[in-house]
Amino acid sequence: MKFIHEDFLLETPQARRLYHAHAEGLPLIDYHCHLSPREIAEDIRWPDIATLWLGGDHYKWRAMRTAGVEERFITGDASPWEKFEKYAQTMPKLLRNPLYHWSHLELARYFGIDDVLLGPGTAREVFDRCNEMLAQPGFSAREFMERSKVEVVCTTDDPVDSLEYHCTIAADKNFPIRVLPTWRPDKALLVDKPGAFSAWIDQLEKSSGVTISKLDDLLSALQQRHDFFAERGCRLSDRGLDTVWAEEYAPADAAAIFERARRGQPVSPAEAVRYKSFLLHELAVMDAAKGWTMQIHYGAQRNNNTRTFRQLGPDTGFDSIADLPVAAAMARHFDRLDSIGALPKTIIYNLNPRDNEVVATMLGNYQDGITAGKMQFGSGWWFLDQLDGMRRQIEALSQMGLLSCFVGMLTDSRSFLSYTRHEYFRRLLCNILGRDMQRGLIPDNESLVGPMVRDICYDNACHYFGFGNS
Amino acid sequence: MKFIHEDFLLETPQARRLYHAHAEGLPLIDYHCHLSPREIAEDIRWPDIATLWLGGDHYKWRAMRTAGVEERFITGDASPWEKFEKYAQTMPKLLRNPLYHWSHLELARYFGIDDVLLGPGTAREVFDRCNEMLAQPGFSAREFMERSKVEVVCTTDDPVDSLEYHCTIAADKNFPIRVLPTWRPDKALLVDKPGAFSAWIDQLEKSSGVTISKLDDLLSALQQRHDFFAERGCRLSDRGLDTVWAEEYAPADAAAIFERARRGQPVSPAEAVRYKSFLLHELAVMDAAKGWTMQIHYGAQRNNNTRTFRQLGPDTGFDSIADLPVAAAMARHFDRLDSIGALPKTIIYNLNPRDNEVVATMLGNYQDGITAGKMQFGSGWWFLDQLDGMRRQIEALSQMGLLSCFVGMLTDSRSFLSYTRHEYFRRLLCNILGRDMQRGLIPDNESLVGPMVRDICYDNACHYFGFGNS
Amino acid sequence: MKFIHEDFLLETPQARRLYHAHAEGLPLIDYHCHLSPREIAEDIRWPDIATLWLGGDHYKWRAMRTAGVEERFITGDASPWEKFEKYAQTMPKLLRNPLYHWSHLELARYFGIDDVLLGPGTAREVFDRCNEMLAQPGFSAREFMERSKVEVVCTTDDPVDSLEYHCTIAADKNFPIRVLPTWRPDKALLVDKPGAFSAWIDQLEKSSGVTISKLDDLLSALQQRHDFFAERGCRLSDRGLDTVWAEEYAPADAAAIFERARRGQPVSPAEAVRYKSFLLHELAVMDAAKGWTMQIHYGAQRNNNTRTFRQLGPDTGFDSIADLPVAAAMARHFDRLDSIGALPKTIIYNLNPRDNEVVATMLGNYQDGITAGKMQFGSGWWFLDQLDGMRRQIEALSQMGLLSCFVGMLTDSRSFLSYTRHEYFRRLLCNILGRDMQRGLIPDNESLVGPMVRDICYDNACHYFGFGNS
Repeated sequence: MKFIHEDFLLETPQARRLYHAHAEGLPLIDYHCHLSPREIAEDIRWPDIATLWLGGDHYKWRAMRTAGVEERFITGDASPWEKFEKYAQTMPKLLRNPLYHWSHLELARYFGIDDVLLGPGTAREVFDRCNEMLAQPGFSAREFMERSKVEVVCTTDDPVDSLEYHCTIAADKNFPIRVLPTWRPDKALLVDKPGAFSAWIDQLEKSSGVTISKLDDLLSALQQRHDFFAERGCRLSDRGLDTVWAEEYAPADAAAIFERARRGQPVSPAEAVRYKSFLLHELAVMDAAKGWTMQIHYGAQRNNNTRTFRQLGPDTGFDSIADLPVAAAMARHFDRLDSIGALPKTIIYNLNPRDNEVVATMLGNYQDGITAGKMQFGSGWWFLDQLDGMRRQIEALSQMGLLSCFVGMLTDSRSFLSYTRHEYFRRLLCNILGRDMQRGLIPDNESLVGPMVRDICYDNACHYFGFGNS
Repeated sequence: MKFIHEDFLLETPQARRLYHAHAEGLPLIDYHCHLSPREIAEDIRWPDIATLWLGGDHYKWRAMRTAGVEERFITGDASPWEKFEKYAQTMPKLLRNPLYHWSHLELARYFGIDDVLLGPGTAREVFDRCNEMLAQPGFSAREFMERSKVEVVCTTDDPVDSLEYHCTIAADKNFPIRVLPTWRPDKALLVDKPGAFSAWIDQLEKSSGVTISKLDDLLSALQQRHDFFAERGCRLSDRGLDTVWAEEYAPADAAAIFERARRGQPVSPAEAVRYKSFLLHELAVMDAAKGWTMQIHYGAQRNNNTRTFRQLGPDTGFDSIADLPVAAAMARHFDRLDSIGALPKTIIYNLNPRDNEVVATMLGNYQDGITAGKMQFGSGWWFLDQLDGMRRQIEALSQMGLLSCFVGMLTDSRSFLSYTRHEYFRRLLCNILGRDMQRGLIPDNESLVGPMVRDICYDNACHYFGFGNS
Repeated sequence: MKFIHEDFLLETPQARRLYHAHAEGLPLIDYHCHLSPREIAEDIRWPDIATLWLGGDHYKWRAMRTAGVEERFITGDASPWEKFEKYAQTMPKLLRNPLYHWSHLELARYFGIDDVLLGPGTAREVFDRCNEMLAQPGFSAREFMERSKVEVVCTTDDPVDSLEYHCTIAADKNFPIRVLPTWRPDKALLVDKPGAFSAWIDQLEKSSGVTISKLDDLLSALQQRHDFFAERGCRLSDRGLDTVWAEEYAPADAAAIFERARRGQPVSPAEAVRYKSFLLHELAVMDAAKGWTMQIHYGAQRNNNTRTFRQLGPDTGFDSIADLPVAAAMARHFDRLDSIGALPKTIIYNLNPRDNEVVATMLGNYQDGITAGKMQFGSGWWFLDQLDGMRRQIEALSQMGLLSCFVGMLTDSRSFLSYTRHEYFRRLLCNILGRDMQRGLIPDNESLVGPMVRDICYDNACHYFGFGNS
């Protein structure tokens, strides 16, 4: 039997019925990803599967290093074939790791290769078959998206970004997929890295046309860019935080800290936290005013390896999961916003699964009885974007909140092949619900459970973000 | 097939046999709840199912808010039917949430309604059928208790409480259920809220007849009330803590802090912690001297929403799970008590399941070889009182302690219908053990496992709390 | 059916095939244990099963105390039969606890007793049958090891140890099992216990022949002993830490702190942490220079019961799981070492399972692409050495790292019967993989999965530690 067959992950008759009748055919809303707008605008192509798969995927790099593959074959100057061969040799060592599923799903869905398992003995065959196809129509960036039934994609963008590629894409009437920007103002928080901070503020001055010397200037410039993003269709913001900061601060104090950092002077850790507490609040207020959804990704411990950071830079596979406390500050952050009627729709993504129950119960404190599922527990992020991580997120959300209101999956990816993650999630979701039906934990009633599947896989996101009406 | 059928949750022949032969018929000891003694004494009735179900249940309120139901239909002035209809509309959105099970279990067990699922299409029928029954004999507070085979109920009471309703109930020879008070002296700890604190001390003065200006006076007054509770049949104490406090303190220092707070003056956070460390120790010593069982509920982060707190007050659905460290302080608390031979029988309830293994292994440090299961890991509390939470508590207790010595389930509820939680727990327990028998993880031997089921569901609690002999 | 039968824990045809064809017959490498080298050298025997089982096993002691057995029958002066009888009476209360499995596995594998369950009714029979066998050939310390197919055992040793018994054992040509020392320099860290610390430094002076008054002297003495251990075949080090310490320190500061402690003077907690940060770094550098594997066991909260500590001393069943943060310091520790090319092969053992994902992802930061699986997530330790704990470790390692590179099981035991833990682990591993094959989560292909089983159960450890070539 094929490994990736039509009932992959679907272990009960109910699961198979739910998936094939309710989930399989739905289009995709990928409301958070890291695709390059330029690559979409230019509709890029890839010379070979090694470049496509191994050119920037730090998940695969990390796995190869763990398996003992030399860096030359990972990020070094080895040939595409050499790199692909090394990855194929690593494949049998990836059993039980999500890469084993993802790689085979991508081969099956985009290249029709479901008749062999990738491994040392099939490396050459798979390499050649893929490369032949990559030269054919149907294998460009946009074509991968269209073949995946993507309707909306939200990229992740710096406030200083011109969004020129978004404009190019939107202007192309032949490309039906909406590619919207997401506002990610992380660099505005970097007051504890004065040099980099001030350099970024210079860029912000340029893009906004606002001279920035005081904190109020910063807020004006950010607001100007926020408005600009909104005009370009932005509906979500995002921020990547070590943990949530919501200390007490005086606005005048925050202003003084900003001015010092603006001048390139150092600020103390405690000052940085006060400034960040201030700015996180202000940024959320901006999002709420526009009806945007605010995303919070927290809990990563980044760049843990100084040696490789110097060689390869960030996002190359040397990050891991942090273990800082978060519950009290997260509640303060949301409470302050709620108290002034300025809490946006919010999606929280934790990286440490030990926080699942903190997050799942935090949501309920701020559900407002107006927007269904206003506060969302984001789908398993990064290291948690796998069967066990997604299952535990679904379990905590189900038991401590409402699974039915969940806006579901996103790719969070730089790759045009990652839409198979939506399929992966949908199969897992249907398997969980189908198994519950079989076990009698929920009624064995398709007319009750089927709509819930459709909601989580598509309809909730459509309504929640307002993508249905535009 | 009915959703709530006789083998609900029982997935193996072994599980069904264990449940029906060993658990199903047992009476209930509900050693921790929040029932109103007045409502029992007055044997109240309810005009309709909306008032009964939605009048005070913040679990349901929270779920409705999450589903996007307006506050008017939750805690507002909508009619009972309107509120019930909104809840029925929410029901299909509750799939995989424990409310879906609890609601249907209560309809089945108390109203005999197991032929329909509650939802928008059946709301009116269920409303009418329930209300008709609520007007009949068999549906008063006491009758719900008697129909549930309750033998003992322990309410939760403030030391200043007169326990008048407990006396009334005890004096009624026609009511066979013992309703005992539980000593919960949380307000004696509130030294960091000087105004409220001193007001409560005034009440304590009145109820104890002791003038309280010094710390020794406080201890005398508490001891007087402790004795009074004991005379009224109290056998358990309880405390609700953010985390366990067991810092170093000098008694003279604690006395000075108390006196300041008694005069309405502020105390610092560090001072409050020292005072609380002192008082928690003294309170435990009192419990130990009487052979009471001390309960500790810790890990809630309460009243996270200032706006709704102002509107609705506490316990209305705006609490969540905290993430403070606890292991070192908990050990110090118990060790100090054990060192002077004053560690009471203790039940620890954690709210964050990440603490399960800390708690499960903490117990073993203080098991004394005299009272079997002296130190207890409390059954899944609040957000954890659901299939996944109870399963994980059972797993940690099993692997790191002795499941066989567990005193089992309690409702922790304000509702007279919550006794179905005992049934829910018993079914889960039998399912776990039955599945282990089927898998060969424990011997497939009913004469070995059956008595363990009976112990956990009834006998252990009876012996542990001493309810068998009085 | 027998409880311990040939397919115990093996629930699918695939699992049974994997275990019997690939795992069952493999020899054992027990790379971390607490066996007494003297007992091996002297090839000791036991007068009865009570002495063998209950003479030093604090797991059993703890369980008996929890079940309400008096201390006299645990560590007191009761007779061997009385103690054994009490344990047998406790056995039915151990259902779902790993002791229930371990005890029956040991009876089955070493005494051939798999026809009865140990309990009150069989206590005498089992006692007599075991004792009769213990008097026969085949039941000495070495014979237990040989019957278990052990190839290599690594004991745990203090740097001041003479390793005389290791020499005796190595010199005995009739005993084929390699018994190697492990370097565990925990006492060199105890700068916050000046009295005990200085006494140990005196011992180190003697064993090394180095006069130690300065920090450099300490390092010289440790290096001298490190070399000595290496000559005796040592390939692993170990350290037991509350948490990982990796604060900033100046070497001169560390030196001053050391000198104060050496003179028996107190050092502050902050100073102790700086000293420990310094020494942990230096100790790791020594390990790396020799190509040793560094083991870190962290997260125990020890000696929580002062009363019993005074009576019984350490390691008697009064330890539990701590909840300190670790991620940031652990990364700093490894990063500093990696930055100077001095990060040894490392195995991390966490005691709190909430850290599983922190550890599983930490590994990836320092995998070097040279040694496959250089950074290892140690198998479930102590309280986690049971089905749920091992399953969760395997799950986190699989999803966030590479299970295939895992060096697998170890006993961590003082008992010569604990080799059944390897069998227990192997059965669990095969059950997990077999079930994945049946569910289609990994290919149902024995030629793919079988070698992975062999790697994890034997080959990886052999290569990783270099035991194959010597």
